[in-house]
Amino acid sequence: MTDTSAAKIDAARLSSLLDGLNQFGRNPDSGGFNRPGFSDADLAARRWLSARMESEGLSVQWDAAGNVFGRLGPEDRPSIMVGSHADTVPEGGAFDGTLGVAVALECVLALRDAGTLPDYPIEVVATSEEEGRFGGMLGSQAMVGAITPEWLEQAADANDVRLWDVMLAQGLDPSLIPGARREPGSVRAFLELHIEQGPVLERRGTSIGIVDSVSGVTNWSVSLFGEANHSGTTPMSMRADAFAGLAEAAGRIPDIIVKLGSEQSRITIGKVDLQPNFPHTVPGQADFSVVLRDTDESIMRALCAAFRETVEQACRNHNLTHEIIERSWLEPVRLDQGIARLLTEEAAALGLSHMIMPSGAGHDAQTMQALCPSGLIFVPSRGGVSHAPEEWTDWPAILDGAQLMLNALLRLSRAET
Amino acid sequence: MTDTSAAKIDAARLSSLLDGLNQFGRNPDSGGFNRPGFSDADLAARRWLSARMESEGLSVQWDAAGNVFGRLGPEDRPSIMVGSHADTVPEGGAFDGTLGVAVALECVLALRDAGTLPDYPIEVVATSEEEGRFGGMLGSQAMVGAITPEWLEQAADANDVRLWDVMLAQGLDPSLIPGARREPGSVRAFLELHIEQGPVLERRGTSIGIVDSVSGVTNWSVSLFGEANHSGTTPMSMRADAFAGLAEAAGRIPDIIVKLGSEQSRITIGKVDLQPNFPHTVPGQADFSVVLRDTDESIMRALCAAFRETVEQACRNHNLTHEIIERSWLEPVRLDQGIARLLTEEAAALGLSHMIMPSGAGHDAQTMQALCPSGLIFVPSRGGVSHAPEEWTDWPAILDGAQLMLNALLRLSRAET
Repeated sequence: MTDTSAAKIDAARLSSLLDGLNQFGRNPDSGGFNRPGFSDADLAARRWLSARMESEGLSVQWDAAGNVFGRLGPEDRPSIMVGSHADTVPEGGAFDGTLGVAVALECVLALRDAGTLPDYPIEVVATSEEEGRFGGMLGSQAMVGAITPEWLEQAADANDVRLWDVMLAQGLDPSLIPGARREPGSVRAFLELHIEQGPVLERRGTSIGIVDSVSGVTNWSVSLFGEANHSGTTPMSMRADAFAGLAEAAGRIPDIIVKLGSEQSRITIGKVDLQPNFPHTVPGQADFSVVLRDTDESIMRALCAAFRETVEQACRNHNLTHEIIERSWLEPVRLDQGIARLLTEEAAALGLSHMIMPSGAGHDAQTMQALCPSGLIFVPSRGGVSHAPEEWTDWPAILDGAQLMLNALLRLSRAET
Repeated sequence: MTDTSAAKIDAARLSSLLDGLNQFGRNPDSGGFNRPGFSDADLAARRWLSARMESEGLSVQWDAAGNVFGRLGPEDRPSIMVGSHADTVPEGGAFDGTLGVAVALECVLALRDAGTLPDYPIEVVATSEEEGRFGGMLGSQAMVGAITPEWLEQAADANDVRLWDVMLAQGLDPSLIPGARREPGSVRAFLELHIEQGPVLERRGTSIGIVDSVSGVTNWSVSLFGEANHSGTTPMSMRADAFAGLAEAAGRIPDIIVKLGSEQSRITIGKVDLQPNFPHTVPGQADFSVVLRDTDESIMRALCAAFRETVEQACRNHNLTHEIIERSWLEPVRLDQGIARLLTEEAAALGLSHMIMPSGAGHDAQTMQALCPSGLIFVPSRGGVSHAPEEWTDWPAILDGAQLMLNALLRLSRAET
């Protein structure tokens, strides 16, 4: 166990670091934050962070993907990396990503202040474009070498603005991104603290989530094709009602999960568009999204097969044809079990209520696991709300999470670990 | 039975009458017809009809509601009225309403040509604003005295254009509409020929539908309120998914109809709008329409109660609240059984395949039934399509329907009937 008297989180400084990053992109009308990847506000926040880390005596570097690093400790040894992303969704909250960056820097400053110089250097990182303006997790993917020139060439945002052009305009050279790849062995571990963005910790009254796995996710676009007809003159038996087919299939989702799923299964139909979408007309077409998640790939595949069969059966029952397009498939990721164990031990030593849990959302830690053992700490989100100005985590919970991160870093950065 | 040798439909003239009305409001790009109630094209078609009827020697009148009448026969006796509406939906077809007006006039001209002057006068009518720009069936409602000054005062179309202003601009005085009411006893019968606008006749290979009843209809706006949450971080059991609630309720409609409905039951969810309607977000709100029809009011009420209960149960199952607004309630109408019998006899005498059927859509005949015995003849709609440029009825079927109407008028307009 770690001697927690050695290094302590400074709540006021942590708060000022969070506020420092959140100077940028704030919409005073909504209270939301707007730092989409490679926007002016995103870059301004990174420059502020660079300057602050330099003023604190850290060795600061940017890589070609826009990741910003601040290093404390010996130059000739592999590092322990800690951080999160500094970009936000449009009108996002103050904590998503940003808190993890602020906590990482505060931990390093607390270590320094305690005079506890690490055996292995600690690198604070603010990763770039995690939120998905150009697909998401760009910074961590660059570090693990997952960015291809072909992808770079075609990447564009929802307004067809090209990543390439945006990076050049911000003084970053996208052609150098492959060089941002970290050599295997150069990073001993990656740790991230993030808000849960879900309701589980709060509802259970638990302070700390220790994430052992990240759900895989697949994203489908489904269209059901029937026939638009008059709602009065078309007998039920002569209809090809696209919405009736959708309702039948969607209504079976709870049963499918009970039969084939797990506690971690999620099937969401979030977007539905009917044609012609007129009260007196039987819907001739229904386009809808399906987002399906589980932490177990075989369960994901079983759920997909069952839902596909349910759609096909609904189409037979309602005289419809259909099209299913799988837009993406991300496999589940198991984070490092040794780090999860270490975090559990340290949480227990601090007397914090904690639970092992999966993450339903994606995080840089899952990408980094391809490079090095990675761990993820969750702190509670009030009401489970995220990606909105109302996003909130209580300050005592933040301090608990930060102290846990600090103690974990103390252990991981010691030569005997 | 009628001596069919006495009067014959003139196919060429009927076609020219249909084309005459359809000169107005045609969109040459789409092939659709645009004569919304009291539009310039609608009024132009009515003026053309007036002039044509005058040139044929009929006694022409307009009433204050914009209904146009052409009368043949003695002035001092109650009339047999025959016709349909001359207005169209936007981008409607060539037959909906218009065919019934053309057939009515052709029947009267055929009678005149055969030298068969009726004992009771026959009034051809082109009713006004049946399609619903200002609510629908304005012309027939004016004749039965169902238009109140309060309604007139507030009636407006979807663009907030007031009926009052539109009528004044067209030279019609809406304040006189109450005077358009026909005295009880002044009309002995009302007959209408209309396209089915549904698939039943075509699919059964039947030429003629004899409508004995018109479905009642109720129109609801329903909102389900849940909580918009992240599709990955929110466990299924902690969701308040408004679309999942809608799917559960909608998926039970077939069972509800099997249990409580009839062959004539229709429950349609034609319009669905989710909030925020984003694939990765659990829907926080679902707004949808319900249009429920049956020819039996007690069945309508049972279906309404069962669907309301289903919505409530789905809300309990999915942690939702809800709001149901009943926007309209129209009772089913039984048309005159004597006239249906007469039409059946005449169809049989003509050797036409025919069936008694209800109408799922509303028609002027249901309104007129409040004033006098009313009947409605359906001719087949190709593919069941209506309210679209593709609307079509084969010419032989039109001539069968027109001859049936002519023979029915012959019987009804004789003193011994």
